[in-house]
Amino acid sequence: MNKNAEIIAVGSELLTPERVDTNSLLVTQQLNALGVEVVVKQVIGDDRAMLSRAIRDALERSDLLFLIGGLGPTEDDVTRDAAAAAVGRKLVLSLEQEAVLLKRFRQLNKPMAENNLRQAYLLEGAEALPNPHGTAPGQYLITARGAMVLLPGPPREMAPMLENEAVPRLKLILPRRCIKTRSFRITGMGESDLDKLISPIYKRYDNPTTTILFAAGDLFVHLRTRCATERECCLLLREVGDPIAELLGERVYTEDANETLEHVVACLLRHAHATLTTAESCTGGLIAARVTELAGSSDYFMGGFVTYTDAQKTQVLGVPQQLIRAHTAVSREVAGAMAERARELSGATYAVSTTGYAGPSGGSECDPVGTVYIGLAGPQGTKVKRISHGGDRHRVRMLATQYALDLLRGELNAREASAAMAARGAARE
Amino acid sequence: MNKNAEIIAVGSELLTPERVDTNSLLVTQQLNALGVEVVVKQVIGDDRAMLSRAIRDALERSDLLFLIGGLGPTEDDVTRDAAAAAVGRKLVLSLEQEAVLLKRFRQLNKPMAENNLRQAYLLEGAEALPNPHGTAPGQYLITARGAMVLLPGPPREMAPMLENEAVPRLKLILPRRCIKTRSFRITGMGESDLDKLISPIYKRYDNPTTTILFAAGDLFVHLRTRCATERECCLLLREVGDPIAELLGERVYTEDANETLEHVVACLLRHAHATLTTAESCTGGLIAARVTELAGSSDYFMGGFVTYTDAQKTQVLGVPQQLIRAHTAVSREVAGAMAERARELSGATYAVSTTGYAGPSGGSECDPVGTVYIGLAGPQGTKVKRISHGGDRHRVRMLATQYALDLLRGELNAREASAAMAARGAARE
Repeated sequence: MNKNAEIIAVGSELLTPERVDTNSLLVTQQLNALGVEVVVKQVIGDDRAMLSRAIRDALERSDLLFLIGGLGPTEDDVTRDAAAAAVGRKLVLSLEQEAVLLKRFRQLNKPMAENNLRQAYLLEGAEALPNPHGTAPGQYLITARGAMVLLPGPPREMAPMLENEAVPRLKLILPRRCIKTRSFRITGMGESDLDKLISPIYKRYDNPTTTILFAAGDLFVHLRTRCATERECCLLLREVGDPIAELLGERVYTEDANETLEHVVACLLRHAHATLTTAESCTGGLIAARVTELAGSSDYFMGGFVTYTDAQKTQVLGVPQQLIRAHTAVSREVAGAMAERARELSGATYAVSTTGYAGPSGGSECDPVGTVYIGLAGPQGTKVKRISHGGDRHRVRMLATQYALDLLRGELNAREASAAMAARGAARE
Repeated sequence: MNKNAEIIAVGSELLTPERVDTNSLLVTQQLNALGVEVVVKQVIGDDRAMLSRAIRDALERSDLLFLIGGLGPTEDDVTRDAAAAAVGRKLVLSLEQEAVLLKRFRQLNKPMAENNLRQAYLLEGAEALPNPHGTAPGQYLITARGAMVLLPGPPREMAPMLENEAVPRLKLILPRRCIKTRSFRITGMGESDLDKLISPIYKRYDNPTTTILFAAGDLFVHLRTRCATERECCLLLREVGDPIAELLGERVYTEDANETLEHVVACLLRHAHATLTTAESCTGGLIAARVTELAGSSDYFMGGFVTYTDAQKTQVLGVPQQLIRAHTAVSREVAGAMAERARELSGATYAVSTTGYAGPSGGSECDPVGTVYIGLAGPQGTKVKRISHGGDRHRVRMLATQYALDLLRGELNAREASAAMAARGAARE
């Protein structure tokens, strides 16, 4: 029989007109992957009695209950208390969790406030779920119908705990069913173009289900199939996914759902023993920030320049003043010169540059707000790509970083392909 | 007495990993303005029995209930049926609504399908709320404790019906109430330290309610009060908020809930007619990216340097090689030199710099992973602050940007204070 689940997000801040619960989306995704349907989602404030009653009702109706948030150290973190009251169990101090907390605070070099000790209390019989990213452990309790799972509210703590701690435990108590997914991450095209291109294929199938998600310039296609056996799943994903992969071609930058474009570029740079620098105007350091978000990025990233004003482009990078005067700072010529000068100054193998109108004001008739020139300088010479998309400042900047990294990816792919061809040629001789 | 409300969004599509209910935000906003608190929000699928039970429970707990969605013409639009079952009333065909529907379809020049007639059925005793933007009328039913309101799901139908039909009716039955909030945004301390400091004050009050939220190095305190008059609200927020403001002192960077630290710094820089540059190592461009996220940042931000490798620190910024050799790149001395050199090279009034171990590897015995030296060079000389906090790479980098901007804020505040003092001195002479 199919199992049902409910999710309760706890926190008065989630009942204001400004905030929405998004944690439940990830939980739903993981539960669906286990063959579990979510039947009710709730948001309840920091009110012990009301939460306790909602927990009792949910446990009566459904097999699994996720409680998210309200595990902090303060008075208004009521989830532990409410859950204990709902299931009629005591909260007991876990010496192990106390030790974990003390160790964490020692590492932070901070004294532990007394109220932090609340976080070491567990529901009687519950298992603690370790939290490497924060002080609140999760809790996992087997119930009459299934299980109750308590997770912390901050997404950076919740997500890994869900994946690494909760899901493996749930797998042990849920009926086996094979669900497999195949993902494509795509850049360089819009959402509706993508859908128009691939929907003639995926619309012919109910299983797998196909979902298209998108962020600025970053698209995901997820195929999700549910079959009796793994072999059936694999065959079906190949049957539907292979023609999609063929249609999308080079635009797919990875089939690994968790690999970002900066990961892919990092991998290509390492493989080519190449280094990178940046010269950013409208993206203001965002490309460098994305590249350096990855640990070990100093292996291939040398550093970069944020030349936000015309004067800085001239003084720091040495872009000729008359070039800016002749073409304006937002131009193909200046983007190219920025990349070339950054490459020379740093000695890096490649340099990417951006100059554009992020908005909301600025822009010209030919180059309205949203126009960005992206330069790439490398051993094969210099390229400049122009993009011009709508959206707010944040979106324009994110799109520009995405296209800049993708321009570099294309160049590195071409280099690798020609190196491979040369190697094959040499082997034949 | 204060009135409470609940909101139930109806629709299986809102229980998928891709969709989130946002209609409830607008309803919450309107209810808050009427002095009504939302205490529970739910999302329930197209399941008549489950929805009916949820409606019954909500009507027992709360004074007002909003049901949003599920008013369409198809089989899986179950809200009317479920509501009727929950309150034990019949659904009766409204001849007036039937006429409205027929007229609408005539205008659209389409035949009316038979199932569309479902939309002309009202709960016995309910008033129809006209829908000029669609076929589903809303419904308004006075209940024992207050009222139940049924609204259509599409936001462009829901929003005007809420504002023009539901709110005026609710005003007639609700006591006049005012809700006001006061917020503090704080940086430079941890969540539990903050709570320990201010909880002796806020714990003495049920009204206002106090909520503490936090992100990496960024804390929010929200006081929210509900009184009969606006004057009472203001007095109460002063009574509780003023001592909190005094305790927190300089650590409060704004009382505007929507103002970020980069906004505050931008404002101070403009006011001082000062400019900024950055020299980032471990934050890799994040400070520049945060600063340039604001439109118009070119007024005070000149650009920056991302010197990720030792070689770049020397070649681009001109930090002496022997300084790095003597103290390592992650040191008070190098952070200071980076800021000073960036300031000289760019001609900016201020320069902030970062150098540290973002992790996961690296670090030394004295300066473990998480240690960052933050430099600030300005007209009054150079300062360096050392921070050392736990957490993953992302958190360490975000914390460093937060402390860097806060160091600059402190300097600009001090400058403004001494300028004001000098002006007062001059006026007295």
